Amino acid sequence: MAHIDLGVDEARFPGITGPMMFRPETGHPLNELAEVLLRRQPHPLTPGERELIAAYVSGLNECDFCCSSHSAFAAAQLPTGMDLVDQVRANLDEAPITPKLRALLRIAAAVQESGRKVTPDLVAAARGEGAGDLEIHDTVLIAAAFCMFNRYVDGLATFAPDDRDAYAGMAQRIVEHGYGVPE
Amino acid sequence: MAHIDLGVDEARFPGITGPMMFRPETGHPLNELAEVLLRRQPHPLTPGERELIAAYVSGLNECDFCCSSHSAFAAAQLPTGMDLVDQVRANLDEAPITPKLRALLRIAAAVQESGRKVTPDLVAAARGEGAGDLEIHDTVLIAAAFCMFNRYVDGLATFAPDDRDAYAGMAQRIVEHGYGVPE
Repeated sequence: MAHIDLGVDEARFPGITGPMMFRPETGHPLNELAEVLLRRQPHPLTPGERELIAAYVSGLNECDFCCSSHSAFAAAQLPTGMDLVDQVRANLDEAPITPKLRALLRIAAAVQESGRKVTPDLVAAARGEGAGDLEIHDTVLIAAAFCMFNRYVDGLATFAPDDRDAYAGMAQRIVEHGYGVPE
Repeated sequence: MAHIDLGVDEARFPGITGPMMFRPETGHPLNELAEVLLRRQPHPLTPGERELIAAYVSGLNECDFCCSSHSAFAAAQLPTGMDLVDQVRANLDEAPITPKLRALLRIAAAVQESGRKVTPDLVAAARGEGAGDLEIHDTVLIAAAFCMFNRYVDGLATFAPDDRDAYAGMAQRIVEHGYGVPE
């Protein structure tokens, strides 16, 4: 049971979906932020890569719903699927990703601890692998945004399904329809 | 110097204002979120009380720009001004605020650590002092959102003025014009 009465069947509307329905006035900008950061094209990072940053940060924050859902959203949009997501989450240094994405994920991990942990060296390393200002900006903001989403979802004690299939169903809807188009 | 070229004079556009201009596509939902959470009426918490939650969390995250600016925004809208903000930040247990606001600030402090730190006891204490679902929801989301804003501002190493007067000027603009009206 969530800490507040969300006014919905929590099993049907797990995780962030319940609070989004409880308070649509805040749900609207939250969905718009997710859509721009994770899906809008053109962008130097694919939606799968951006969802991987979201899943990685959510794992560091131990937010079961966000980590499971964004892992599924990343897997559905990455050529090597959930295996790659699991490898990145288990061992970032050895996972078979580009050096640029690895350097960006290191920036994301620093942001998860504190914005002040992002050093000039981490930024220079990402630039050295070809990352530009937009990729660095969006990596910082994706990581920061998931420090919000994770706390929102867990701070209200929302329901997180155990079953990975539930998240695969959500992934299909996100890939097809996105996070809701801003009005 | 910020970690990326924000394309603006950082002294004129300190803190979050530079990144908002660098990436208006994300600036739009971020401003809308701040406007709804911190200013929109009617609401059971005043704008001053909501800004106080933002300032308090920003202090816990040691984000100089956000703490100084939202302290000034709170002070400009609270009857007892900056003295009260300073008292809350220095000693929450003894500060002369309502028991309800104190209980909500304790929830905010838990969120700052992790969403999973918000216990049923903390929520029950706030309810016991008269807080309803909307106040509990918005306290959790304000605290979570400032865990994002603080990381965004510091993760890009933006400029924070030392002078309190600079923030008083920003406060006047926010009180008069808000965070920008969503289109």
